Amino acid sequence: MAQTTPNHTQTVSGWAAHDSSGKITPYTFKRRQNGINDVTIKILYCGICHTDIHFAKNDWGITRYPVVPGHEITGLITEVGTNVTEFKIGDRVGVGCLAASCLECEFCNDSQENYCDQIQLTYNGIFWDGSVTYGGYSKMLVADHRFVVHVPDNLPMDAAAPLLCAGITVFCPLKDNNMLELRGKRIGVIGLGGLGHVAVKFGKAFGHHVTVISTSPSKEKEAKEHLGADDFIVSTNVAQMQAQKRSLDFILDTVSAKHSLGPYLELLKVNGTLVIVGAPDKPIDLPSFPLIFGKRIVKGSMTGSMKETQEMMNVCGKYNITCDIETIIPEKINEALDRLAKNDVKYRFVIDMGADKLSRL
Amino acid sequence: MAQTTPNHTQTVSGWAAHDSSGKITPYTFKRRQNGINDVTIKILYCGICHTDIHFAKNDWGITRYPVVPGHEITGLITEVGTNVTEFKIGDRVGVGCLAASCLECEFCNDSQENYCDQIQLTYNGIFWDGSVTYGGYSKMLVADHRFVVHVPDNLPMDAAAPLLCAGITVFCPLKDNNMLELRGKRIGVIGLGGLGHVAVKFGKAFGHHVTVISTSPSKEKEAKEHLGADDFIVSTNVAQMQAQKRSLDFILDTVSAKHSLGPYLELLKVNGTLVIVGAPDKPIDLPSFPLIFGKRIVKGSMTGSMKETQEMMNVCGKYNITCDIETIIPEKINEALDRLAKNDVKYRFVIDMGADKLSRL
Repeated sequence: MAQTTPNHTQTVSGWAAHDSSGKITPYTFKRRQNGINDVTIKILYCGICHTDIHFAKNDWGITRYPVVPGHEITGLITEVGTNVTEFKIGDRVGVGCLAASCLECEFCNDSQENYCDQIQLTYNGIFWDGSVTYGGYSKMLVADHRFVVHVPDNLPMDAAAPLLCAGITVFCPLKDNNMLELRGKRIGVIGLGGLGHVAVKFGKAFGHHVTVISTSPSKEKEAKEHLGADDFIVSTNVAQMQAQKRSLDFILDTVSAKHSLGPYLELLKVNGTLVIVGAPDKPIDLPSFPLIFGKRIVKGSMTGSMKETQEMMNVCGKYNITCDIETIIPEKINEALDRLAKNDVKYRFVIDMGADKLSRL
Repeated sequence: MAQTTPNHTQTVSGWAAHDSSGKITPYTFKRRQNGINDVTIKILYCGICHTDIHFAKNDWGITRYPVVPGHEITGLITEVGTNVTEFKIGDRVGVGCLAASCLECEFCNDSQENYCDQIQLTYNGIFWDGSVTYGGYSKMLVADHRFVVHVPDNLPMDAAAPLLCAGITVFCPLKDNNMLELRGKRIGVIGLGGLGHVAVKFGKAFGHHVTVISTSPSKEKEAKEHLGADDFIVSTNVAQMQAQKRSLDFILDTVSAKHSLGPYLELLKVNGTLVIVGAPDKPIDLPSFPLIFGKRIVKGSMTGSMKETQEMMNVCGKYNITCDIETIIPEKINEALDRLAKNDVKYRFVIDMGADKLSRL
């Protein structure tokens, strides 16, 4: 455990869940000294991802308590290791889902370290030194520099934080399916939450026709007027869904609840692709007929590599894309998690790490 | 209905199911006169596909009784229309799943008429003239020449018949995923039945390492010694499945019963592709984690275009690939359907249309 590893001598204030109630309370713990490949980061902001709820409540049965969640981290560099040349003190940086990978396999060598089978996550992982990783619900982070990216100067650090997970998660499938090079494709985005709203922004920035597909008719105005979506389909409206059959080239499915892919696959043209980036904990229903009759394609995609994450950040800088956020003080984390579980946020909570009670005194 | 269409004047002996019992009995019906774009075919053989059971029993709720099943047809041309130049009397030909398509849409214009949304099937479809199509469980067929292929001279007509559905169904995904050009890929074939056993033959002919994945340990000897498979995994053996994680480039899933894709997806390398060609009538379970964590791809594929079917036939001629069959007389169709429902056939029943009681007198 982190506390017993000899070089874990730096005391950090953070917030952790201690059991499957998922309740987050202040937690003081130790981080390692800054190593030769490390940078130390003063955390400014950390986004709250839906995954944080799953880990806090041990929904997947793999939580190591106490767990300090948070993998949408922005901050300023305060120390750099002797091997580190890409970063200097004062740099604006971000850390996402990855803390470590093997650095040796075909995926690590090919800048696809997010698919290395030894990857360790920013929290609830086991770092190279055997310690449990603690995430961004804390005031300071020591990170290997190979898992840190620069944040463009024009992006505000709070609204940029969720790009580190929500942003990269939707950016990669768009890139992988040539949506950065092509123009004028018809893209569908299922679910208008933390991931979906960034996907709409990317889709429009890249010159596509974007249709939001949602269970909530109330989101239509917001989707079109605020986020710039071209079209809106209520997924429970059979007539609307029927009218749009075979109309889309590509769909991003950001829904994290169990659902059937059938009605969505019908929206795709022949040879169309649907990418699943939400992670329902129950299997998704995949009816074979719409898959087979339309020669359609379902893909999975998980976060992105560090190279892709930096590319995404640069693209966001170029197009001035950030997340729509609601900033909270750390004492409101539990309330935010409860509201997030009910999708009651537009569109991402971001914790202001410098705004806790102690700092406010 | 066929019988009431004015130019449907040719009397044909066949076999039909009349209700959801699925029982097949002799049935005499009418086919159209040979039109300017038609060829008339004396049917020699017709394979029995699992789909025939579904239609005979109205499993999908779309059967038009009486239904004359059969879409794996080989025979000899006895008449050609005035517009037909590619076929002459006496030609050895085959007819598969397709009877008609719109001939005008982007798919028809791009030799992908199997994805035209107006396609009509060889049986239980509605032809251009408004008549219900009757399939290959019969002695004669009138077919539009654009939906007929040549059978290479070196292929026996009985063992070639199932290539028209089983063969093309597994050929297309192999071709679409570059398995005709590449060599030495690691291919998995789930299910060793009518489709699976041809897939193994294709995989080996194209120079790949082929692993059969089956619930039946008893099939290992046959798969390896007779069909030439390199490896065999019992899908219910967790240790065997674990040992082969991330080992395959490509999987063909020929299973037509409801199943979970999770354990099979784990067998794929990162970026690996699984193609579903079986058509379970209940949704397949698609767990998101193995899809997402391995950036894996699930595709559907349905039969093939006529151009692809001819290409497949030519490839079979080149490599001398046919199906392993059990030939039956027409009076044994019901027994064969019962045995097929229990997978009790190696690997395809083929009806000898010239061997019915009357012909044997």
